[in-house]
Amino acid sequence: MTFIAPTADQVLAMRVNAGIEEIAQSERFAAATPDLVEAIAEGIGQLAAGEWAPLNRIGDTEGAKWDDGVVTLPAGYAEAYRAFFEQGWNSISGSTDFGGQGLPFTLATCILETLGAANMGFTLLPMLTVGAIEAIDHHGSDAQKATYLAKLISGEWSGTMNLTEPQAGSDVGALRSTAAPITEGEHAGKYRVKGTKIFITWGEHDLAENIVHLVLARTPGAPAGTRGISLFIVPKYHVLADGSLGARNDVRCVSIEHKLGIHSSPTCVMSFGDHDECIGEMVGAEFGGLKAMFTMMNSARVNVGNQGVQISEAALQKALSYARDRIQSPRASSGDKTPVAIIEHPDVRRTIMRMRALTEGARGLLYYTAGQIDRGTLGDTDAQKRAEVLVPLLKAWGTDTGCEVATLGVQVHGGMGFIEETGAAQFYRDARIAPIYEGTNGIQAADFVTRKLGYDNGDVVKALLEDIVADCAESPELASLARDALAIAAWMAGGDASLDDKLAGSVPFTTMCAVAVAGWQLVRQVQATGSAEKAAITRFFNRTIVPEARGLGAAAMAGAALIYELDTAALVG
Amino acid sequence: MTFIAPTADQVLAMRVNAGIEEIAQSERFAAATPDLVEAIAEGIGQLAAGEWAPLNRIGDTEGAKWDDGVVTLPAGYAEAYRAFFEQGWNSISGSTDFGGQGLPFTLATCILETLGAANMGFTLLPMLTVGAIEAIDHHGSDAQKATYLAKLISGEWSGTMNLTEPQAGSDVGALRSTAAPITEGEHAGKYRVKGTKIFITWGEHDLAENIVHLVLARTPGAPAGTRGISLFIVPKYHVLADGSLGARNDVRCVSIEHKLGIHSSPTCVMSFGDHDECIGEMVGAEFGGLKAMFTMMNSARVNVGNQGVQISEAALQKALSYARDRIQSPRASSGDKTPVAIIEHPDVRRTIMRMRALTEGARGLLYYTAGQIDRGTLGDTDAQKRAEVLVPLLKAWGTDTGCEVATLGVQVHGGMGFIEETGAAQFYRDARIAPIYEGTNGIQAADFVTRKLGYDNGDVVKALLEDIVADCAESPELASLARDALAIAAWMAGGDASLDDKLAGSVPFTTMCAVAVAGWQLVRQVQATGSAEKAAITRFFNRTIVPEARGLGAAAMAGAALIYELDTAALVG
Repeated sequence: MTFIAPTADQVLAMRVNAGIEEIAQSERFAAATPDLVEAIAEGIGQLAAGEWAPLNRIGDTEGAKWDDGVVTLPAGYAEAYRAFFEQGWNSISGSTDFGGQGLPFTLATCILETLGAANMGFTLLPMLTVGAIEAIDHHGSDAQKATYLAKLISGEWSGTMNLTEPQAGSDVGALRSTAAPITEGEHAGKYRVKGTKIFITWGEHDLAENIVHLVLARTPGAPAGTRGISLFIVPKYHVLADGSLGARNDVRCVSIEHKLGIHSSPTCVMSFGDHDECIGEMVGAEFGGLKAMFTMMNSARVNVGNQGVQISEAALQKALSYARDRIQSPRASSGDKTPVAIIEHPDVRRTIMRMRALTEGARGLLYYTAGQIDRGTLGDTDAQKRAEVLVPLLKAWGTDTGCEVATLGVQVHGGMGFIEETGAAQFYRDARIAPIYEGTNGIQAADFVTRKLGYDNGDVVKALLEDIVADCAESPELASLARDALAIAAWMAGGDASLDDKLAGSVPFTTMCAVAVAGWQLVRQVQATGSAEKAAITRFFNRTIVPEARGLGAAAMAGAALIYELDTAALVG
Repeated sequence: MTFIAPTADQVLAMRVNAGIEEIAQSERFAAATPDLVEAIAEGIGQLAAGEWAPLNRIGDTEGAKWDDGVVTLPAGYAEAYRAFFEQGWNSISGSTDFGGQGLPFTLATCILETLGAANMGFTLLPMLTVGAIEAIDHHGSDAQKATYLAKLISGEWSGTMNLTEPQAGSDVGALRSTAAPITEGEHAGKYRVKGTKIFITWGEHDLAENIVHLVLARTPGAPAGTRGISLFIVPKYHVLADGSLGARNDVRCVSIEHKLGIHSSPTCVMSFGDHDECIGEMVGAEFGGLKAMFTMMNSARVNVGNQGVQISEAALQKALSYARDRIQSPRASSGDKTPVAIIEHPDVRRTIMRMRALTEGARGLLYYTAGQIDRGTLGDTDAQKRAEVLVPLLKAWGTDTGCEVATLGVQVHGGMGFIEETGAAQFYRDARIAPIYEGTNGIQAADFVTRKLGYDNGDVVKALLEDIVADCAESPELASLARDALAIAAWMAGGDASLDDKLAGSVPFTTMCAVAVAGWQLVRQVQATGSAEKAAITRFFNRTIVPEARGLGAAAMAGAALIYELDTAALVG
């Protein structure tokens, strides 16, 4: 099976769900004409299908290799990465001041979606670079921007995010890495960084000339917790005044992890300052690390939600191909005893319909979120707030959906799905990381109910759900789901629900809201196009997936007493 | 973490859900006294924890190895298998005429559950032997029983089931292997078997002296489809008149599969009769293969459902251990800023509660089914029919539950869950086979709605659901779910639902019924013990998992038009 980019569906989602034509009416994004949007979707589709997809399997079977601090990728990765950045795909949304094309985030979303559906682990490389670009662009000095941005935006250099330490996972504030100011010598004004970071995606590799590590650490005497964290740039190679590369910095990849999936993506243990010579520069203000981290994480969370769409699309394509080609048994309801393709059998067809509906719904949610982000960039504060509300919905439900579609894809293949050579199992393994990293889906749900739900006294979430009710008059299931969610939101905001009650119901509630938004985006596609095909997918979504989501209402409001009734000793047994 | 057998919960499930004490009041099963039941649960728990669990990881990382037709297991497997059969565990439910202990299936269920929670791939070896024993016991001649049963029941020899061929997966009737009668010479009366079988679990290995292959094949001129299939015994080594082993038969393992999980279990491609010298004996009547296959498959399906419980228990234990030990962040609702074990955080606790409730519910369903099978063996035809109705519920939902609990277990571990050394990922991979083999879960659901639902004009399913309504007066959610299922069953049985409509809703309907039975079994445990701990788990099940299952009702009754509205070309895109 060959991967084919879902170009038409992406263009549709950019047009209808993101509203790219409206976004392009701004001066800033005027270049994003319909022709360019189509050209980008088609062009990245060709690169993904031609260069990235063929490397997906070798990336899984051979994967990244570590040897004495050096990480190498399988044959072909270097050339494919070079083709990617030389064709200018990395620079799409980067600032025009540093060689970027300044196009909307919506288009960057399309590029990542396409590449990631072809090769999810590989696509983490440009995805992580985005985080570094944003941190430096928003919080760096002019000198830092001049030194780092052009090469990061072009993709010649890559970026990383260094947050996690063994004792500091979800609790970033527990990190212990240090950064001591240097007061004299050639590095005066900079910092000596020391510490060990784990789970560093693409922390070391041989595809880019330089790697720009964004590192969270504590300055001497910094307050405990998240309030005492600052952000530092630590390049793999020092950058000289003329922009050329100098000596190697004192940062080293100590090992890479042996993981369930995304084997092409080296997950590194990074050691900073083994010889007390790891030199970093502070980005932004001292103790501004948490703020900068959120800058990096916000788009990273959207991009992880995007990965759910990526893996869904990949799994769907493979399952469709198998279900269409595999002949097995006559159709039970048919008098004809000739065996048929399994896609003709009701339960396989239902499964495929579910995979398509989930994939397209998640895509709708993804581009709707991207469009709101672009509007936020243009100064629309309502859109900005709505985007922030959408991010945890997309990250959590998008990645749960990726796992579900991948496991359904295995099932469609029957026994062949369990055989690694088929490739369906790789999606099942790759998909599984996305609900975990960039804040587990439990943390997304906590963010949603404890922070986002309270924006403007609850009005931001309320307006979103009310828009759904208003827009889905002809989709009664969706309108009912949105009303259920409104009632739960009101309960959570009211005095009857404790913080623990809200958190206990946060995951089911987040799923309900995400399904409501995703279904709404499908409805909007049907409204915009009148497509009978989209109407059939949307109807299936509304009549099966939406009622299931409504079934989560009881769990969302079940309260914390139910889960704390059994004390910990009894629960552990 | 060390695996500890869930002995107390197993004894409870045997007592309450299987009703072992009542079963032991029969003459046939009188040996199954309460003392013996406990001794068996404890004894197998010790073997599993001491000998089988420590081999689980090496079975995954090294796995079974093939070399020129010979399959070897990692160090330690031979000794652990020997300990298992020498202690008599394989013979628990075997016929006393051939050295078996003649104990109830309920106890064999407990043995498999315990071993499989310690090492699922390994436990497939005795599990497959059960199928061979039952086929020969029910359909073999006296001579065949005398030749094969004692060694299979002791476990010195192992058994296999050879059904699948590349073109004949779910459609067993499409198989092409042949068996030609031998009319003269030393093998007169036997058959020359020829063909290739795939996906043969433990088809070749070095742990047993001999392997007894049960092979489906066609005799010359046999009718097409399932009506023309006969069953044959093909031993790896010929068995001489005195019971000793003779020459090697012409059957060979051509290769083993590279799989997503259960790496300790060699999944073999078997070639019969490469040199036209593969000698087999027919079991039962010519064309009686399908009937014999169902004999093998019925208990195999229960035992695969059991695997769902096994992997759930294993994943639960690992997650509990991690969640209790991993300290991260203070509890949000607490004024105390000291970081706590993550099990204290609401969403992790909810996840653990869900894992426990699903695991215990699936266990209740497993032992309830086992108990009905034992009653059927004792001549209770109502119990026999109820057992047949329960089998697809257990196989489908039990294995779906195994996958869900395993993926939740990964999630509880956060980033560590994605690292293979942690072990949670192995459960996620191992669990994934169970919804596929022994009839995919879609096939189970089809069996449920097209065959089982019609037993006694629907009365068997109806009586089951009505028992739940009657018994769950104090669990309104469960009673409501059972009533929903009754309404759907009535719709499916009525004239409005076509065969395609039923099949289109079969999987969600099967899940609803299974959840109803599982919840009921938890309620029965609470009723029998008054345990506050079980009451808390049951309450969680009823208030969160049961409403979710009710949310499937719309999908169960959505009808086939919804999935066929889009024609195949448009669906494939």
